[in-house]
Amino acid sequence: MSDFSSLSVFSRLSLNSATTKKWTLAEAVDGCVRAGIPAIGPWRDRVAEAGLDKASKLIRDAGLRVSSLCRGGFLTAADAEGQAAAVADNRAAILEAVALDTRELFLVVGAWRRGRKTWWLPAGALDRLWDLVPFAVENGIRLVLEPLHPMYAADRALISTLGLPLDLAAPYDARAVGVGVDTFHVWWDPELKPQIERAGRENRIASLRP
Amino acid sequence: MSDFSSLSVFSRLSLNSATTKKWTLAEAVDGCVRAGIPAIGPWRDRVAEAGLDKASKLIRDAGLRVSSLCRGGFLTAADAEGQAAAVADNRAAILEAVALDTRELFLVVGAWRRGRKTWWLPAGALDRLWDLVPFAVENGIRLVLEPLHPMYAADRALISTLGLPLDLAAPYDARAVGVGVDTFHVWWDPELKPQIERAGRENRIASLRP
Repeated sequence: MSDFSSLSVFSRLSLNSATTKKWTLAEAVDGCVRAGIPAIGPWRDRVAEAGLDKASKLIRDAGLRVSSLCRGGFLTAADAEGQAAAVADNRAAILEAVALDTRELFLVVGAWRRGRKTWWLPAGALDRLWDLVPFAVENGIRLVLEPLHPMYAADRALISTLGLPLDLAAPYDARAVGVGVDTFHVWWDPELKPQIERAGRENRIASLRP
Repeated sequence: MSDFSSLSVFSRLSLNSATTKKWTLAEAVDGCVRAGIPAIGPWRDRVAEAGLDKASKLIRDAGLRVSSLCRGGFLTAADAEGQAAAVADNRAAILEAVALDTRELFLVVGAWRRGRKTWWLPAGALDRLWDLVPFAVENGIRLVLEPLHPMYAADRALISTLGLPLDLAAPYDARAVGVGVDTFHVWWDPELKPQIERAGRENRIASLRP
């Protein structure tokens, strides 16, 4: 493998653990170290597998930074029970992010509600998301909204464009709500260039996958 | 089959021949007549199969209206040869629309160019589309831009949202450039409701599939 560590342009490079899906967290950490990648963005399932404390120690002992934790969200359930479960899970994710010493928690907001009668963003669909902001801020965690390609709009994320989360985040400080830019998801967005520029100006970009 | 003809709400209903893909044009015309659907939107391949003059006579003799012709477009080739071929094909489609006595020609604009170096709408990508407008207007044909779901952005249509074709059409009269609204393609668009309202206000809606 190449050693990226001597190139300053790579100082902010991070390995998202979904990129090496078959690796355990320990294997991914080792891969980062061998390749000179200074940071890792683990997924919660890999962290849970290793155990939170052990995961945190493993990463720290390897000298890696945790760029972000993936992922919370799925906050668009229509019923109170589903919403309460999602909120509890997201509060847990915020505390996991704290334990891992990262400041960024990625969220996939959740799908368009089943059975919705409208063709547009239903009022209230994201209320539980905004309710989480104070708890995240108290814990020094930024909620990072990641647009997914519209092929995932029916089951994962009603946010598909980069402009929408920036519009929705406008009332919140850039340290409270950010965005992720993954070209796998947003390359088709006709507003992509101006919205990336805007996200940069507004200091909301938590990560960019070119 | 139900007879829709006595219900005035169905007076603008049209069968798009792609809905009954296995039917020949004659079978689709017969299906419309049996169901009381007063109009048909044939695809060019079905018209070509029947022969243009015969197709026109077949539809007229059945007492049906041609709501639109599907489809032209694919005008985003990067090379001059590809562009010239696309322009010739679209001029032919405009004349076919005239022969079929419809005023609406649906266009799927074409894919993001292969090998493009940018993540956003490349300047000039739609120049050949706009070049066609005078010829279409002379022949009384409206060019209807249809957004397709972004899963088709790499091979068929760089227009995915309803707002984009409305923005692009702004310099042109509503009798020259319209839009199609197919919820199969645009249901995920977070701007769908206001953009449908805008399209209606601007008299640009050539068809709506709810």
